[in-house]
Amino acid sequence: MQVEPSAHPSAHEADRLRVAFFSIVPGPECGYAALMNLDSVIAAQARISPYIHRTPVLTSHRLDEQTQAKLFFKAENLQKVGAFKARGAVNAVLSLDSDTLARGAATHSSGNHGAALAYAARIVGTTAHVVMPDDSLPNKIAAVRGYGAKLTLCTPTLADREAACDRIVRETGATVIHPYDDDRIIAGQGTAALEFLSQTDNLDILIAPVGGGGLLAGTVLVAKKSNISVIAAEPAMADDAYRSWQARKRIPPERTATIADGLRTGLGERNFAIIQNHLEAVQLVTEEAIIHATQHLMHTLKTVIEPSAAVPMAAILEHPGTFAGKRVGIILSGGNLDLSAPPWLTRQG
Amino acid sequence: MQVEPSAHPSAHEADRLRVAFFSIVPGPECGYAALMNLDSVIAAQARISPYIHRTPVLTSHRLDEQTQAKLFFKAENLQKVGAFKARGAVNAVLSLDSDTLARGAATHSSGNHGAALAYAARIVGTTAHVVMPDDSLPNKIAAVRGYGAKLTLCTPTLADREAACDRIVRETGATVIHPYDDDRIIAGQGTAALEFLSQTDNLDILIAPVGGGGLLAGTVLVAKKSNISVIAAEPAMADDAYRSWQARKRIPPERTATIADGLRTGLGERNFAIIQNHLEAVQLVTEEAIIHATQHLMHTLKTVIEPSAAVPMAAILEHPGTFAGKRVGIILSGGNLDLSAPPWLTRQG
Repeated sequence: MQVEPSAHPSAHEADRLRVAFFSIVPGPECGYAALMNLDSVIAAQARISPYIHRTPVLTSHRLDEQTQAKLFFKAENLQKVGAFKARGAVNAVLSLDSDTLARGAATHSSGNHGAALAYAARIVGTTAHVVMPDDSLPNKIAAVRGYGAKLTLCTPTLADREAACDRIVRETGATVIHPYDDDRIIAGQGTAALEFLSQTDNLDILIAPVGGGGLLAGTVLVAKKSNISVIAAEPAMADDAYRSWQARKRIPPERTATIADGLRTGLGERNFAIIQNHLEAVQLVTEEAIIHATQHLMHTLKTVIEPSAAVPMAAILEHPGTFAGKRVGIILSGGNLDLSAPPWLTRQG
Repeated sequence: MQVEPSAHPSAHEADRLRVAFFSIVPGPECGYAALMNLDSVIAAQARISPYIHRTPVLTSHRLDEQTQAKLFFKAENLQKVGAFKARGAVNAVLSLDSDTLARGAATHSSGNHGAALAYAARIVGTTAHVVMPDDSLPNKIAAVRGYGAKLTLCTPTLADREAACDRIVRETGATVIHPYDDDRIIAGQGTAALEFLSQTDNLDILIAPVGGGGLLAGTVLVAKKSNISVIAAEPAMADDAYRSWQARKRIPPERTATIADGLRTGLGERNFAIIQNHLEAVQLVTEEAIIHATQHLMHTLKTVIEPSAAVPMAAILEHPGTFAGKRVGIILSGGNLDLSAPPWLTRQG
């Protein structure tokens, strides 16, 4: 069954998306998992490919020796806007009809989704309205500005972010594009795994970081048609996906104070519904392991990654038995590191 | 005329190489330029290609907009051992006959050539003896050890380096492989430009950093058969190539205190002979510009480079008129940055 992401979201749907953005609804009874499948990802791939890099796959003999595994790194840090987020945002924006598009797109984001939406809006010639908390990383604020978005800074509370976004939607009629709890976003993010499988053979495991679950849900949609296990890697300091997966129901985040700033959000409703029955494991990692893995991968692969992107490697180093002897695909989710404050120099794990 | 690098260097030649390593002889009357040409590089390419990465070429719309040029970056930071130096060292070692090889290879180096020789020796199953001054960067010492070389640390004086290397040669019969003033090394380094031209069309300018001149001389051998101008970029704090090129005779270094640790050596005799009549310009850059360019390229290209690799970009930013409107090939020479002490955090330009 092929269910295309809606090409014509109604005002009602925009409301629904906006509500979903801020509310936490227990899963999995919503049944979203039944609505999406690999075909959604394939359709997204066709839609976004002119605007998205086919990112390279990196390997390292030294890391293979160290882990006794065969590791393949999908370098989404080299993607447009420096993160896989460009895939979902471009897919979402290209799925809107022209009248809707003309009113612009809106979101709130502390990080890469804001830049991705700005990039996507620029492609189609519309306006992206991005609300960012004023404690966001300076390089991520600069990126959103750099891609030409209309930026609104607010105090870093959910209420203030919500109010700012609501006001923009009221004034402009812009469509809210949720950063992860959105079928079009999930399908777009899944294209990273789809492309990855076309570049590698016989993977045993795909491992991706989990925050809201957009990348992870998209990866599951791709992998569940094959014999590839999917493992989620999550900071222990932001462990709601682990607790949700264990409890078989979505549990809101209790703490989010991880250095992996891309993974501080709680797991989305759709995302949980898609992943719950298809994950091999959720592996937790310490802050120290994340910081070490960030520096270690940059040193070894000579590629710039942000801490969130190092969380899977941290899991491989902390849970070596899961991976030894296996062919492992690792999604390096993003490269927007604040070089003026590398975490191994500014933070103690 | 095709002159292959010698496959059977005699003991006499080993002596000659060793002497050349430590002496400074005024050029260009030696006539080395007549002995090497593009065919040497093509032969090297055939010899080394099984052991060397075909590194990718990176581009950035943002950098193109900033410079009003079309920039192509040859990512030799992703080469084996993290630097183009692997090309020359592999070519030199593969050019030795088996009896010579069995006695090992030796060099002294504060940086990437030591690691490259260690890598090359491991390929053919012989020993690399590497003398390093004890003030070398810790990550570069670790790399030489990591590739299995026999490491000798000495005090950072030329006399002590020379004595240590001499002793090793006397005791082992190892062949000294000079880091740049060697035909086989120059031919090997030239393969970076040869490969680059096969990956890009219609370059107007090739720009490379200059220290001893191995990469630069190899690049000239490739470019002088075409209409491509070659520009050398050099730290003003280690400006002997600039002064030599201006004076049309080789002038020894007066100062070498640049952050670009790969470019502190004086221009070699063979290297000067090859480049002197074929350079469009030698452009000097400040320490501040090198540090800025290192961080700027890492931020924009998401690739890890060492300061030496950023010297050409520093030149482009400091001399924009030379490059505006041109298609410019830039060799990113290496990626062995000490991440525990990024220069933009530890040094004032």
